[in-house]
Amino acid sequence: MQKLKLGMIGGGNDAFIGAVHRAAAVLDARFEFVAGALSSTPERSLASGHALGLPEDRIYATWKDMLEGERRRPENERVDVVSIVTPNNVHAEIALPFIDAGFNIICEKPMVTTSAEAAKLAAAVERSGVVFGVCYNYSGYPMVKEAAALVRSGAIGNIRKVFVEYHQGWLADNLETTGQKQASWRVDPARAGIGGAIGDIGTHAENLLTTVTGLRIEALCADLTSFVPDRRLDDDASILLRLSNGAKAVLTVSQICIGEENNLSLRIHGDGGSLAWRQEEPNHLTICRADGSRQILARGGPGLAPETNHASRLPTGHPEGFIEAFANIYRAVADGVLHKRGALATIPSMPPTVHDGVQGVAFIEKVVQSAKAGATWVQYHTTQ
Amino acid sequence: MQKLKLGMIGGGNDAFIGAVHRAAAVLDARFEFVAGALSSTPERSLASGHALGLPEDRIYATWKDMLEGERRRPENERVDVVSIVTPNNVHAEIALPFIDAGFNIICEKPMVTTSAEAAKLAAAVERSGVVFGVCYNYSGYPMVKEAAALVRSGAIGNIRKVFVEYHQGWLADNLETTGQKQASWRVDPARAGIGGAIGDIGTHAENLLTTVTGLRIEALCADLTSFVPDRRLDDDASILLRLSNGAKAVLTVSQICIGEENNLSLRIHGDGGSLAWRQEEPNHLTICRADGSRQILARGGPGLAPETNHASRLPTGHPEGFIEAFANIYRAVADGVLHKRGALATIPSMPPTVHDGVQGVAFIEKVVQSAKAGATWVQYHTTQ
Amino acid sequence: MQKLKLGMIGGGNDAFIGAVHRAAAVLDARFEFVAGALSSTPERSLASGHALGLPEDRIYATWKDMLEGERRRPENERVDVVSIVTPNNVHAEIALPFIDAGFNIICEKPMVTTSAEAAKLAAAVERSGVVFGVCYNYSGYPMVKEAAALVRSGAIGNIRKVFVEYHQGWLADNLETTGQKQASWRVDPARAGIGGAIGDIGTHAENLLTTVTGLRIEALCADLTSFVPDRRLDDDASILLRLSNGAKAVLTVSQICIGEENNLSLRIHGDGGSLAWRQEEPNHLTICRADGSRQILARGGPGLAPETNHASRLPTGHPEGFIEAFANIYRAVADGVLHKRGALATIPSMPPTVHDGVQGVAFIEKVVQSAKAGATWVQYHTTQ
Amino acid sequence: MQKLKLGMIGGGNDAFIGAVHRAAAVLDARFEFVAGALSSTPERSLASGHALGLPEDRIYATWKDMLEGERRRPENERVDVVSIVTPNNVHAEIALPFIDAGFNIICEKPMVTTSAEAAKLAAAVERSGVVFGVCYNYSGYPMVKEAAALVRSGAIGNIRKVFVEYHQGWLADNLETTGQKQASWRVDPARAGIGGAIGDIGTHAENLLTTVTGLRIEALCADLTSFVPDRRLDDDASILLRLSNGAKAVLTVSQICIGEENNLSLRIHGDGGSLAWRQEEPNHLTICRADGSRQILARGGPGLAPETNHASRLPTGHPEGFIEAFANIYRAVADGVLHKRGALATIPSMPPTVHDGVQGVAFIEKVVQSAKAGATWVQYHTTQ
Repeated sequence: MQKLKLGMIGGGNDAFIGAVHRAAAVLDARFEFVAGALSSTPERSLASGHALGLPEDRIYATWKDMLEGERRRPENERVDVVSIVTPNNVHAEIALPFIDAGFNIICEKPMVTTSAEAAKLAAAVERSGVVFGVCYNYSGYPMVKEAAALVRSGAIGNIRKVFVEYHQGWLADNLETTGQKQASWRVDPARAGIGGAIGDIGTHAENLLTTVTGLRIEALCADLTSFVPDRRLDDDASILLRLSNGAKAVLTVSQICIGEENNLSLRIHGDGGSLAWRQEEPNHLTICRADGSRQILARGGPGLAPETNHASRLPTGHPEGFIEAFANIYRAVADGVLHKRGALATIPSMPPTVHDGVQGVAFIEKVVQSAKAGATWVQYHTTQ
Repeated sequence: MQKLKLGMIGGGNDAFIGAVHRAAAVLDARFEFVAGALSSTPERSLASGHALGLPEDRIYATWKDMLEGERRRPENERVDVVSIVTPNNVHAEIALPFIDAGFNIICEKPMVTTSAEAAKLAAAVERSGVVFGVCYNYSGYPMVKEAAALVRSGAIGNIRKVFVEYHQGWLADNLETTGQKQASWRVDPARAGIGGAIGDIGTHAENLLTTVTGLRIEALCADLTSFVPDRRLDDDASILLRLSNGAKAVLTVSQICIGEENNLSLRIHGDGGSLAWRQEEPNHLTICRADGSRQILARGGPGLAPETNHASRLPTGHPEGFIEAFANIYRAVADGVLHKRGALATIPSMPPTVHDGVQGVAFIEKVVQSAKAGATWVQYHTTQ
Repeated sequence: MQKLKLGMIGGGNDAFIGAVHRAAAVLDARFEFVAGALSSTPERSLASGHALGLPEDRIYATWKDMLEGERRRPENERVDVVSIVTPNNVHAEIALPFIDAGFNIICEKPMVTTSAEAAKLAAAVERSGVVFGVCYNYSGYPMVKEAAALVRSGAIGNIRKVFVEYHQGWLADNLETTGQKQASWRVDPARAGIGGAIGDIGTHAENLLTTVTGLRIEALCADLTSFVPDRRLDDDASILLRLSNGAKAVLTVSQICIGEENNLSLRIHGDGGSLAWRQEEPNHLTICRADGSRQILARGGPGLAPETNHASRLPTGHPEGFIEAFANIYRAVADGVLHKRGALATIPSMPPTVHDGVQGVAFIEKVVQSAKAGATWVQYHTTQ
Repeated sequence: MQKLKLGMIGGGNDAFIGAVHRAAAVLDARFEFVAGALSSTPERSLASGHALGLPEDRIYATWKDMLEGERRRPENERVDVVSIVTPNNVHAEIALPFIDAGFNIICEKPMVTTSAEAAKLAAAVERSGVVFGVCYNYSGYPMVKEAAALVRSGAIGNIRKVFVEYHQGWLADNLETTGQKQASWRVDPARAGIGGAIGDIGTHAENLLTTVTGLRIEALCADLTSFVPDRRLDDDASILLRLSNGAKAVLTVSQICIGEENNLSLRIHGDGGSLAWRQEEPNHLTICRADGSRQILARGGPGLAPETNHASRLPTGHPEGFIEAFANIYRAVADGVLHKRGALATIPSMPPTVHDGVQGVAFIEKVVQSAKAGATWVQYHTTQ
């Protein structure tokens, strides 16, 4: 199978997530990394490009150079997919011209910083017909796909109550004042947008909730806090939710929970059973049934849904992790591109789409709106 | 040491919790069970008394008979402590005359069904000077005492965020329509009061939260649901809380979470560390410190607080459970009685008091008030 | 139901295990503790008796006094059961005359220190017809009974491989030189017999293995070590076993494993599934079936064997522990006594018997024999 | 950094482990996969090469073709490293000529099938000076490196007892009779050599034990079994070990443990503490210290050894798994090659070497020798 050509904007060699994108892209030998404008300054962009061994003529100083440079190439030599791995505030301005120029896109989350931008992006994607995937990478885990499949199959009946948590501890202190790069832009409204923790990780929690349950949020009541002195964006959120089928949910997000590593967890309770999954031990999923039985399902084990097995690479007991889940986003985009070009008859799985991205941005806005009004209820009229 | 004489009201031999009280009372050889009015009908009271081997002349048909019968005995033959193990609605009417007659009391939770009753009880206790313990038995676990001691010692700094959950699944279906006795009265407003799950187990969660953190609740926003059709009281609650030092908390309670057994858990995050404890594995407590270290403390292990070790009976690795925690309430009441009589110089530990009971009833009322107003914020002006 | 009268030899108020026996005895209101010769010196025996509130005329200075004193009483006032809670070396000399005098016995493990003594005890029990239970208390856990029931039912097919471990860390250092009482006698051949760790806890592991699997040991190869300098008995054992159906087993025992609390665990692999249980989390049992499914069974949950439920007191999620398992030995002995007297038609469960005790002593001897011969294979011809 | 050119022998697109090698090789962008003789028949070799997108002129029908083809290329175009991913019986005949021709090698385990072959390989490696890594991939996990570093630092004192287990369930039935490819060759003495489970996974356990402890095996007593009818090689092993410092160990290996996925675990007990690690949850390591404290160390967390952090790619809580550990072997070989060529001043970590391979083969032989002699002790005089 011909490899697709990948270009990257942001994600230079001092950004943890850039390396994840590159590893995820090549894991299945579906992409080769050929071009990049890897940092926010020309100097660092060039340095990163050299350090990562890109061909000289495809190390770009800026994303505009890359747009021009790649457009100038014959169609069959251009990058097939552009990954946008920058701070949130520049996603839209970068993505729009690339979309308009017909490049397929993988975009970090939150997709953009306002619903207005999000709508423009969605319109552009529809207009141009490019494949556009948003990096809600946690939805790429095989056992998350299994959870969704079990919900769809009716294994736990009608959903009543959902608990989704995303707790970290790395911002419990004012790390941003030390020059730590990851922290600095995430707590800066100019670069992160109106959401702190709620934007950085809350949107993952929201996507996990809606993706697995298949339900929409209809109302929310959010209490946001900035616990660390002088921090301008929230670092903690507690949110009550009402879902489209009458179910209730509680979504909590925090980056000040000392001792928590990257604890994203989902528990779904239906009238016929329940499901529980934890990102830090992603290879298993617990299902309880109405008869009171409790079973641990293992990735690679028997009896799983086809989409779960498609998302899984190794036999049971051989732990898969974060990179493999991420790679499933890349693989889904690759499949989408090949399908669009007629090289693949069917698409075995879909990445999170621009519509998931739109919904994520709306979520952040509604949460901030609720919080600013004193943690009061906000109706929620997004459509999916 | 002379054993104290225990009488019991309710808790007949078809009630699970009655057997727990009796086992807890005798575990440390501090009580002998000598009298009872064990059920709501005279016939069943007598049958239970005989089945449990009480002396003929102390098997009472009704609590009123017991009050009279015991008062008639010479002071040194009377029951020293009366346990009230009935549905909530009759706690007050039983407790008040016993208190006024000078009997020490152990009372199930929620203490009573209205704040008005609670105030009367508190006044009666103060007037009479009896020892009065409320069965917030989960506070009796050694590692809960350790958590409280660690908070007091400053081990986790100033508390910022607390998560307390109490999730069960046994009422996920309409068990109450099958004649199951435990279920029937708990979902009946006439016997349970205004709270369903929030009264039955939410009050445990509230007591655990305030006891361990030492903080007061200042405001709450509660979303209550009755998921099971035709159920008149809540079987699920999601509550946002604001605490006295500016901390935030999320308290969730549910009895419709299929697969959950009796999952009471507490996670406390301070600016200097965090604590996590789970009732289903009560012999351990996790502490994380600001330096990122994660340590598992074991009951019976080294370096614990004196009150933790006092509450513990067995060496580490020899699991203690529910009954031992319950027995710690009984032992604390016994110590209180002996101290009042001058037979004990100091009291090594305190049971949950009538003031905890008052606070628990207020909590239920505020939660229901908030929920009825559409899950809006209610200020919280109880004092402890 | 009339309570049985319990007398105790050893287990004075400075012995942890004495308090466990007393709590276990009264937990179900089946016994009252009325008499004792509670220590190895008359002074301490009398002091313990007073401290524990025994009636003056039944506080005995020595076990011989107790034997005489109780025999002199009218039959219906005598102790019904005598618990022997002393170091191993005096079990036989105490038990024999009590058995011959018709007293029912509960005896700590290992039952005696030599097979010769064990045979005498077994013969005496048979001759006298008394009820005799050995404190293999771990077999009293409900989920251990469930494991045995599942094996009998064929749920895991023919057993192929068994792993049983009993690892502790409390003797990793030379605690015995500090005067610590528990340690002192356990490492002293004069009081403990020929086995150190293998006698103290290895015999529990052996009993758990054979009780749950229903298989006999046919050969063993044992490597014993005394890791702590100057310790005269083993503190660590690694043993290969061959079982009666061709299954193999590995039994490891250690008291020098720093960090291990009281980690007794059992894993049984059959050709149709497997079972796993751990004493430190005793309320659950894992079963895996040939189809690859993994299920967690919970004490108090649905679908368990009658003997499991009979051994269980609390609803699921309300942790039971060490004392409840211990109490199941006491309850089984009480049932046996009542049955013998015609007061109970059937016996719902059996305690570990004198034959389990015989087998345990033989196990220790074979292990030591193998180890002394350089960890070579020893055939095993005990019969049960 | 210039990428190294990788060729592969075996590991065609129907072999799970081939895909793992390829993913591991490219994860860090240190290798590009350019050549292969990917299967045991020319037809399947060519088909796999095409399917995997190798350049036409480097898809070889046989390893001999590849040897010749690559030798003919100019030195700077040749493959830098050859991965040997075939059944065990052909490792030696393939590796030797490649070594002699100066190619660097990554070889699957067990390295070869006899000690005679192993010695030849070791001699060839020494003669030629190539870099030679053996795929003891579990040693590549960061927290395994941390365990080794902690042992070296004295954190747990002198090692006394080690438990190493490697339990799987996938061969509990006669899978080999169904044509399943993974099973077929592993149970066939002609292709696997004299060891079944002991060769396939026992050698991993042995390597983990000796790598982390730094101790040599001095004697062993091994009981091997073939539980599945008609299976010619062992599928289960129980082994007692004596180590070079007087420590004892128990090593158990099984492929008939239904319910076990890929459960490799290591517990090391010293006189100053203990360590525990489990491959299925590889991102954490438990350390207990002599003071009784129990701490969970997290990959990516604070206070770890430099070699641990070097082996880690993601922040804490972002699970790394099997492929990352495998990739650490590839990265170490790449570093070795670059260092040999003067392009890297120091080598940050070493892969398992030909000497580890020699030791692994000797282990299998000694185990089989012991088992054949009736599970008797065999002295162990290999040197490392």
